[in-house]
Amino acid sequence: MPISLDYALAMSDGVGPEGGLTDAELDGLAADRFRQAHAGVRARVDGGELGFWKLPTERAVLGEVARVRDALADSVSDVLVLGIGGSSLGTRAMRDALTAPISTAGARLHLPDNSDPWLLSHLLERLEPARTAALVISKSGGTVETAAQLVIVRDWLERAVGREAMAEHMVAITDPNKGGLRALADAQGWPTLPIPANVGGRFSILTGVGLLPAALCGVDCEGLLDGAAAMAERCTSPSLRDNPAGIVAAVHYLHDTLKGRNIHVMMPYSDRLRAFAAWYVQLWAESLGKRFDRAGERVECGPTPLTAVGATDQHAQVQLFMEGPRDKLVTFLAIEDGERDLTVPESQGSTSYLSGTKLSALLDAERVGTTEALASDGRPSLTITVPRLNARALGELFFLYEAATALSGELYGIDAFDQPGVELGKRLAFGLLGRDGYEEAASEIEDRLAKRPTRYRV
Amino acid sequence: MPISLDYALAMSDGVGPEGGLTDAELDGLAADRFRQAHAGVRARVDGGELGFWKLPTERAVLGEVARVRDALADSVSDVLVLGIGGSSLGTRAMRDALTAPISTAGARLHLPDNSDPWLLSHLLERLEPARTAALVISKSGGTVETAAQLVIVRDWLERAVGREAMAEHMVAITDPNKGGLRALADAQGWPTLPIPANVGGRFSILTGVGLLPAALCGVDCEGLLDGAAAMAERCTSPSLRDNPAGIVAAVHYLHDTLKGRNIHVMMPYSDRLRAFAAWYVQLWAESLGKRFDRAGERVECGPTPLTAVGATDQHAQVQLFMEGPRDKLVTFLAIEDGERDLTVPESQGSTSYLSGTKLSALLDAERVGTTEALASDGRPSLTITVPRLNARALGELFFLYEAATALSGELYGIDAFDQPGVELGKRLAFGLLGRDGYEEAASEIEDRLAKRPTRYRV
Repeated sequence: MPISLDYALAMSDGVGPEGGLTDAELDGLAADRFRQAHAGVRARVDGGELGFWKLPTERAVLGEVARVRDALADSVSDVLVLGIGGSSLGTRAMRDALTAPISTAGARLHLPDNSDPWLLSHLLERLEPARTAALVISKSGGTVETAAQLVIVRDWLERAVGREAMAEHMVAITDPNKGGLRALADAQGWPTLPIPANVGGRFSILTGVGLLPAALCGVDCEGLLDGAAAMAERCTSPSLRDNPAGIVAAVHYLHDTLKGRNIHVMMPYSDRLRAFAAWYVQLWAESLGKRFDRAGERVECGPTPLTAVGATDQHAQVQLFMEGPRDKLVTFLAIEDGERDLTVPESQGSTSYLSGTKLSALLDAERVGTTEALASDGRPSLTITVPRLNARALGELFFLYEAATALSGELYGIDAFDQPGVELGKRLAFGLLGRDGYEEAASEIEDRLAKRPTRYRV
Repeated sequence: MPISLDYALAMSDGVGPEGGLTDAELDGLAADRFRQAHAGVRARVDGGELGFWKLPTERAVLGEVARVRDALADSVSDVLVLGIGGSSLGTRAMRDALTAPISTAGARLHLPDNSDPWLLSHLLERLEPARTAALVISKSGGTVETAAQLVIVRDWLERAVGREAMAEHMVAITDPNKGGLRALADAQGWPTLPIPANVGGRFSILTGVGLLPAALCGVDCEGLLDGAAAMAERCTSPSLRDNPAGIVAAVHYLHDTLKGRNIHVMMPYSDRLRAFAAWYVQLWAESLGKRFDRAGERVECGPTPLTAVGATDQHAQVQLFMEGPRDKLVTFLAIEDGERDLTVPESQGSTSYLSGTKLSALLDAERVGTTEALASDGRPSLTITVPRLNARALGELFFLYEAATALSGELYGIDAFDQPGVELGKRLAFGLLGRDGYEEAASEIEDRLAKRPTRYRV
């Protein structure tokens, strides 16, 4: 059974005229902007510019992943994924959704995706290098956080296993045509996997970036691709009402631009999808948060994605969702079969009403209660139902939001595939670090720091 | 050294007139609304209504915590914290900030704070009951998620250790004057710790709620309280410019109400403070997201708190913060001494510029680069500097934001200490579950579900 999307409570029919869209608004978009957006994405897919769309059907990657996995030392029980942003968020989403929280089968994946030394230093103290492999992942091949970790971990491994054995402990996953990482790996004889030039980092989960870690921790890679392929098929429909990514994009776009609902909440009722929501945050924020010129006027746009987890956040954020400003559109993720359950035993006294209740039923009642409580006050939501949370379903979810992001970029009229806004901060940081070629940035930031008024301190 | 707050880049002096507040705006508030807010909070503290303010100086709790800790079986190596929202978020913040990510000393704390059976079912399979203690934490004594877990875990423990030994494996932490939990614990002879009636769940980290878990995993409880007490002293000042909580409250309130910056980002440059940011989200969202009547008009207010972690989110959310709508005020948390470090070894080629760089220096350069990049475009922020991240500093941070929340409630003119908006969803969920006394809610939700239009599905 495929995942399904119910958007009745985002429409005025379901949630009232203040909270919902009219059919006319949706159909108007379908006839005009959505038609263009769909055609724009199709053209970029067919032209080879948007490589992510075809990844689910390009199965040669499975052989390459198996080859690299088999090239690692048999002793490997722990895998350090050295990557950040698009090189780690999808992998964490996959690991947390599809493997046991207390790892038993397959290798353990560790994701120290920060330049904070805290986690990595603890890992290097506790892991045995002879039983550890490092996957170095960077689309650009030059990500500074990853480069720094690479040199540290390489040194740690090489001291223990010797230079000759390093090819059984190191893998590089990067764009073959740029950056220093591929050249280094080739020079050292480490196995490599490509991130195709036409696949951006945050759209790369279905390349070796996500598939090698998946294979190492026993996840069904074919299932991931099958689910994504099935969703790609559905998202190719030019008919908005039949296109799940089209509906996600259109409903969010219209609520943002017509109703001022610019905070887009992803709220799985499942601990397993907490990291999926964090993956979505990067995709939505970095793709759609953009400045551009429209007829000479500066436009700064982009909804703010927000994560919540049910039922946990009913005790944290739901008060704000229920009574705060009407600036939010919530997407609930409902899991019909979560694979595991617990039943409350018979008890007396104040807890007797729970006797025989399954936790899954409690969780689901809480989700429905929250959804309907919001709706009763005209506060809109969508609900995605996942019949069974497995690799196939996760593949569907990954592709659904990648396609919705591409379509949203067209609706907003922005480039969803770049991230120019992070360059300045990076340049100033390199200036502070004294990197060659960043002398101008160094004086710029020294100047800024010297000019900062000092009287606002407490 | 106490933590310090620099708000220069939230002022027009530091970030320009579009992005910053004027001294006149801040001083105007200080003379008027802040003076009232401060007096209002003081009166409620002195009247005994806001119990959280005096917790840092009430040290009798340390003896009670030690007594309960010592009553647990010596064999205990794993602790299940059964609680949700205010009964788990502070504890996770404390654990993640102050204990090693791969636990070595003290007991391991597990926080299955959801009715999702996933994590709890795995824990019950893997833990040994004889080596496990359960802390059941609920301010109201009747939280449904916690009640359900209590019955399940109690059954699991009792089958293994026998009824007589249960008092060495179960602790109840709750308001002594209400709910079924205290009565159950007393009847069973389980040790208990109080959550005072005048301390709300989300303000309870410095009661037994946080202190018993802290003591069990080897955290310096006295340090937590000392830090909080020192901050309480600073936050008692009636002079806004000398009062750190006053500045946090006032700067956020003015940016929200005068500048439309209603998304308040908490961005620690530290993996250790990721969970602290999640604790802040509950505090800010549930306290300040409120509907009320002002002169007969319905007002729905409340900023939306958002978490980000540096440097990780420079690869996820910072693009949106840099180029998206000017609706955000960021608080950076800078750690001067993170206790651990790693140095990049000498290397050749494309990574040679990093040779000898400490990861802590890289992390800090990235923070400053991001702060100044935002400021250069008139995008405001505050920076809190933590000289050394230990129990004392965390105590300061906890209290700072609790006090800022109380003051913010007064500035917005709302009650920061209730959460009426979550009742309806809870009632509807009980209706769905068929709980006695919720027959009306049951028919209400059946009616709503039956009326939901079915044609919006894809």
